Amino acid sequence: MKIFEFAVPTKVYFGAGEVSKVEEHASSLGKKALLLAAKDTMRQLGFLDKVKGLLEKSGVEVVVSDDVSPNPRDVDIDRQAQLFLDEKCDFTVGLGGGSAMDTAKAVAFLAAQGGGTIRKYLAGGDNAGLENVKDAFPIMVITTTAGTGSEGTPWWVITNTENHEKPGTGNDSTVAKIAIVDPELMLTIPPSVTRGTGIDVLFHAMEAYIANIATPFTDLLAKEAIKLVLENLDTAINEGSNLEARSQMAWANTLAGIAIGEGTSGTVGIHAMGHSIGGQTDAPHGMTMASVALPYMRKTWSADTARYAEVTRMLGFGDESKSEAELAEYSAVALEKTLEKYGVNIKMRDLGVKEEMIEPMTDSVFKTMAGPLSCSLMELNREDIVALYKEAL
Amino acid sequence: MKIFEFAVPTKVYFGAGEVSKVEEHASSLGKKALLLAAKDTMRQLGFLDKVKGLLEKSGVEVVVSDDVSPNPRDVDIDRQAQLFLDEKCDFTVGLGGGSAMDTAKAVAFLAAQGGGTIRKYLAGGDNAGLENVKDAFPIMVITTTAGTGSEGTPWWVITNTENHEKPGTGNDSTVAKIAIVDPELMLTIPPSVTRGTGIDVLFHAMEAYIANIATPFTDLLAKEAIKLVLENLDTAINEGSNLEARSQMAWANTLAGIAIGEGTSGTVGIHAMGHSIGGQTDAPHGMTMASVALPYMRKTWSADTARYAEVTRMLGFGDESKSEAELAEYSAVALEKTLEKYGVNIKMRDLGVKEEMIEPMTDSVFKTMAGPLSCSLMELNREDIVALYKEAL
Repeated sequence: MKIFEFAVPTKVYFGAGEVSKVEEHASSLGKKALLLAAKDTMRQLGFLDKVKGLLEKSGVEVVVSDDVSPNPRDVDIDRQAQLFLDEKCDFTVGLGGGSAMDTAKAVAFLAAQGGGTIRKYLAGGDNAGLENVKDAFPIMVITTTAGTGSEGTPWWVITNTENHEKPGTGNDSTVAKIAIVDPELMLTIPPSVTRGTGIDVLFHAMEAYIANIATPFTDLLAKEAIKLVLENLDTAINEGSNLEARSQMAWANTLAGIAIGEGTSGTVGIHAMGHSIGGQTDAPHGMTMASVALPYMRKTWSADTARYAEVTRMLGFGDESKSEAELAEYSAVALEKTLEKYGVNIKMRDLGVKEEMIEPMTDSVFKTMAGPLSCSLMELNREDIVALYKEAL
Repeated sequence: MKIFEFAVPTKVYFGAGEVSKVEEHASSLGKKALLLAAKDTMRQLGFLDKVKGLLEKSGVEVVVSDDVSPNPRDVDIDRQAQLFLDEKCDFTVGLGGGSAMDTAKAVAFLAAQGGGTIRKYLAGGDNAGLENVKDAFPIMVITTTAGTGSEGTPWWVITNTENHEKPGTGNDSTVAKIAIVDPELMLTIPPSVTRGTGIDVLFHAMEAYIANIATPFTDLLAKEAIKLVLENLDTAINEGSNLEARSQMAWANTLAGIAIGEGTSGTVGIHAMGHSIGGQTDAPHGMTMASVALPYMRKTWSADTARYAEVTRMLGFGDESKSEAELAEYSAVALEKTLEKYGVNIKMRDLGVKEEMIEPMTDSVFKTMAGPLSCSLMELNREDIVALYKEAL
């Protein structure tokens, strides 16, 4: 079993105040940067000016594009990649949550191909396999949320506006060369976002553990991430300025990101189904997982009772008077109770999903998320996915 | 804080039967390999023929040099690097324990410099800083012991026959491109070697935890490695053919190796002092650590009571009626009791060290092991080291 593969040089800086490392390291990536920042918030919070200043202090010229929206669209990437080329930038800097980081990756990749449309490289596109592509320009990411784990993975999730799909794409060259995880940038995240991203971390870690490509290495990271989420998410939601809780959530997020990241484990059917909801509705990523997770667990627990029983234990419901099979079957209930603890009890219809969307969403699962789906411990066919979506509606 | 940096592409394969991966991946490193194997044992156990066969099946031509002795010497590296060049090899394969893996690294490095003597690049040599050197040829390592962690680090430890020093050297290019950790190759390790290498794993993990460059990432790996050693070393020693115990020890070793490996944590004064014993006496690596560790712990525990108290807890002596300072101070006793559990109760004189060797050993600590020494949580000067050696004699 390949325990892990770190395919590219990558440095991760973690800790309060680490954003200052931008000044020290940015110039190693080039002379001119395209700074891609989440819309409005980064400017309002002063993070945009702070990072721009640090980049300039390191002698890097900065072009700012602070118009990254949640669930970035292909057309945005195309435009920003052209800007990168017109301005003759050397590298991208993603400042924000998953959307900004994924944008920085996709723009660095598309610009390296000389621009055009990113759709060509998304699932279903002419070159979805990324055959014979050039390596992306260097990427730096600065995460301001404890969710998505994008700082630890090669993946970028871009919405295809032609077919409303939301595939994850990436190769070795789209791993950030430098990733900065600074919990001080997370102290002002509103509770709803802390909750949604925190739940996303929980799913990354739990899915990495119930993936058929899990290894002892990813298990170690996933278990630690789940433990940290359970210990700290509640405080991070209700006491946003608690630096310790923010730090632990940020670290849990990075661990989970590495667990599902390059050459290690991956997500499973939960993410495959959740992403396809995201493509249709623009619902928050974490909530889309929450809406499909319980049917998924109820359906799949028997595929590996040892691992699902361990999920129940990790979530704090390890009643050892129960048999392993009983504990495994209970994993869906354990997850439901865990989500309810954070006020998350959600059905797909709450996210704006209508019954008629189930067919296209199912198409999307097999067309754009076949990879994660194939990491599930139980093989799921089209009928299974339709049934799970109906149950989750 | 830099959590981690993986500076080179590296793949680690772990698990029973994984040695078969040699056939699948060897050809990605080149057409002709210099197979450097531990003397006698690899041939006797049939591992040499097995690996040679797998290399040839993958289409790789093989030159065999199965004369690697414990604590490899500069003169051996010089000779083997010349053989590599004369035979126009493309990469090295190290088959055995730390000595064979370190030899594979040093030979791949020296050959890339065009041969000559490896002493030039060892501490105190003309180019000990490895300034402007060429990258090493690709390296594959196949570890047959659960100790040294060499498969996870860039370090190679070569004995300098001119000054009897035993420095650790290495750069990003001397991390193995492919590392194979197959516990099935460890089932016949004699108890004494299992004990010595297992103790080495314990020290790598514990030192990584009490290093001043420890991170949450290395802490996670180190704690897991210590837990696995305590759970499995006894069985591995007394029931060598127990594959589960061998697998867990092998995994603990790899985790500890990564923890002290590239860009993560490192070892401390214990390894600095132990290596310098090894240079003088040829004593087994693990035992040299054991002989100096207790004085080191007694001397340094007050430098970070939280971490040393945690060491005591990790070793299973966490009496919570004690204060943190008391637990920290107890860490030396906890380690002593732990070592005794494995029948290890050793003084330097048992390893052949004489009082007159303390001065040259101390010189060697500062000349060749200043790096690990500087990772200690307490700053130790020359007088401190002399005193610790005298206490350990």
